[in-house]
Amino acid sequence: MDFTFLGTSAGSPTRSRNVTGLALSHAGTKPWYLVDCGEGTQHQLLHTRYSVMQLRAIFITHIHGDHTFGLPGLLTSASMLGRTEPLDIIAPPQVQHLIHAVIENSDSTLNYPLNFIDSEAADFHWHDEHLDVSSVALSHRVPCRAYVFTERWVERQLLHNRLQDDGIAPGPVWGELKNGCDVLLDDGRLLKSDHYTEIPRQPRRMIVAGDNDTPALLATAGKDSHLLIHEATYSQEVADRVGPWPQHSSAEQVARFAESAGLPNLVLTHFSSRYRSEPGSTPHINLLAAEAMQHYKGRLFLARDFDAYRLEKDFSLTRLNDH
Amino acid sequence: MDFTFLGTSAGSPTRSRNVTGLALSHAGTKPWYLVDCGEGTQHQLLHTRYSVMQLRAIFITHIHGDHTFGLPGLLTSASMLGRTEPLDIIAPPQVQHLIHAVIENSDSTLNYPLNFIDSEAADFHWHDEHLDVSSVALSHRVPCRAYVFTERWVERQLLHNRLQDDGIAPGPVWGELKNGCDVLLDDGRLLKSDHYTEIPRQPRRMIVAGDNDTPALLATAGKDSHLLIHEATYSQEVADRVGPWPQHSSAEQVARFAESAGLPNLVLTHFSSRYRSEPGSTPHINLLAAEAMQHYKGRLFLARDFDAYRLEKDFSLTRLNDH
Repeated sequence: MDFTFLGTSAGSPTRSRNVTGLALSHAGTKPWYLVDCGEGTQHQLLHTRYSVMQLRAIFITHIHGDHTFGLPGLLTSASMLGRTEPLDIIAPPQVQHLIHAVIENSDSTLNYPLNFIDSEAADFHWHDEHLDVSSVALSHRVPCRAYVFTERWVERQLLHNRLQDDGIAPGPVWGELKNGCDVLLDDGRLLKSDHYTEIPRQPRRMIVAGDNDTPALLATAGKDSHLLIHEATYSQEVADRVGPWPQHSSAEQVARFAESAGLPNLVLTHFSSRYRSEPGSTPHINLLAAEAMQHYKGRLFLARDFDAYRLEKDFSLTRLNDH
Repeated sequence: MDFTFLGTSAGSPTRSRNVTGLALSHAGTKPWYLVDCGEGTQHQLLHTRYSVMQLRAIFITHIHGDHTFGLPGLLTSASMLGRTEPLDIIAPPQVQHLIHAVIENSDSTLNYPLNFIDSEAADFHWHDEHLDVSSVALSHRVPCRAYVFTERWVERQLLHNRLQDDGIAPGPVWGELKNGCDVLLDDGRLLKSDHYTEIPRQPRRMIVAGDNDTPALLATAGKDSHLLIHEATYSQEVADRVGPWPQHSSAEQVARFAESAGLPNLVLTHFSSRYRSEPGSTPHINLLAAEAMQHYKGRLFLARDFDAYRLEKDFSLTRLNDH
């Protein structure tokens, strides 16, 4: 499972960080999925291998502008590029109103259907052939969701000993069994895929959370997950000074939660624009990493725009590019 | 009069060109004016000296998304930065609907008033202490305007001979007269500013046009103007192939018009994304310059993102930066 950060700044863009967007795919870049779509997301995509032509679905965590204002431009550009494939938009109902109002008041047309799915519906669940997606309600100034992406299909492995013991020779039958199909032989024997194969590992599962001041809401989902991507807008000291109103998390809060949930991988993102990345500048973004590391012993990253990661089949997390 | 291109691409952004936006000021960067606001305009501004805190007014030529989709982000970011000054938005009425719908459906608030002014009103006229702004109706798929910016105040020059002849010694009186104020002397004489000063030149005037397939609509405005900024979406050959529907201009069309109107300076912008700037790439953007030069003998530029220009007091046009 691959993903690339398209924006890692909270609220407003900075010179080096755009507002929130995450491109995610099961393998390669076709199809792919977008989580949140701040202004300039279509611009960021031009510098990646992801194309709006192969975008399968957009998941919006909540209605704030730094997570949604890129939608009108991305959707109309896809139409100008010739897209005709339907597109699922999983979002709170206001996002549908916003898109309709913008299209209506800008003389825009979309030459493909939008399929709106209410992310706030009690029975929300989405899937395609690659991924199952469920959601968890978070705590923010407006209704907000974390999306839990679980791979739908884990390749079976043949149990060679059993096949040999039963005299089943290598050939097309092995391929069928590996694909999960039962096979009826000419001699009348029915070979059950479940008997001759095993599923060698759990499906990979990752949580992409929206804005949230209560990481513990992810306790249940976190138990079976291999990765959490969560906002860490401030350090604990700044969070204390800012007060509870913005309803964001500190690096410490998220780190403590990830540690208690036993999550092996944690990527922090959505940083206040006060934090700087240039060497010697202050407050430096590495403060947030230092704070998180005091409370979390797993594999930790601070996201940067255009950082690409892979959640491997052994559940380790690898950064694919290096700045 | 200074201006910086924030975007020079038609329809969609490219890797090196954003969609339309132009920052303009009378002197320095405080206050300044924005003409059109495509998606990502606030991002582009972060790389210039213009700040949303000193933005006086936004002029929108027409409602298409590549000229308007940056408004919600720019306006809400200005609020987050602490802006409290009112902001004029000169635009077709749909832009007001768009902004209200987006704010309402994204839990946004603006901590300063927006002052909407209908750009399509028959008696449209705007001014502040620096600039007079009128408009000209263009021809495009939707109602579209060119804005004509005229400097409001040209510094008077003292007529030293007359002052000496009348025995008026250098001092504060000279300053008053230079500022256009009449002065009553202790001896009872009334000195008329108009008598002791002259206005040494015409006010500078520049036209910033929106999308338009009929440059000749600018014939009257062009007569007294020193600069035209106009779209040249295609070469004539591509325009012929694309057909009339998009209602854009070719480089040739605009060049012929500017030549016939006697305009001394012409900057072309809003180029189709098919044109490339990298050396050796094709079709190269310089095709458009070559085409325009065949029909226009004045000073010609093709705009690039972040190019800054100055219309000097002698009506010459200077590019301030060089890539």
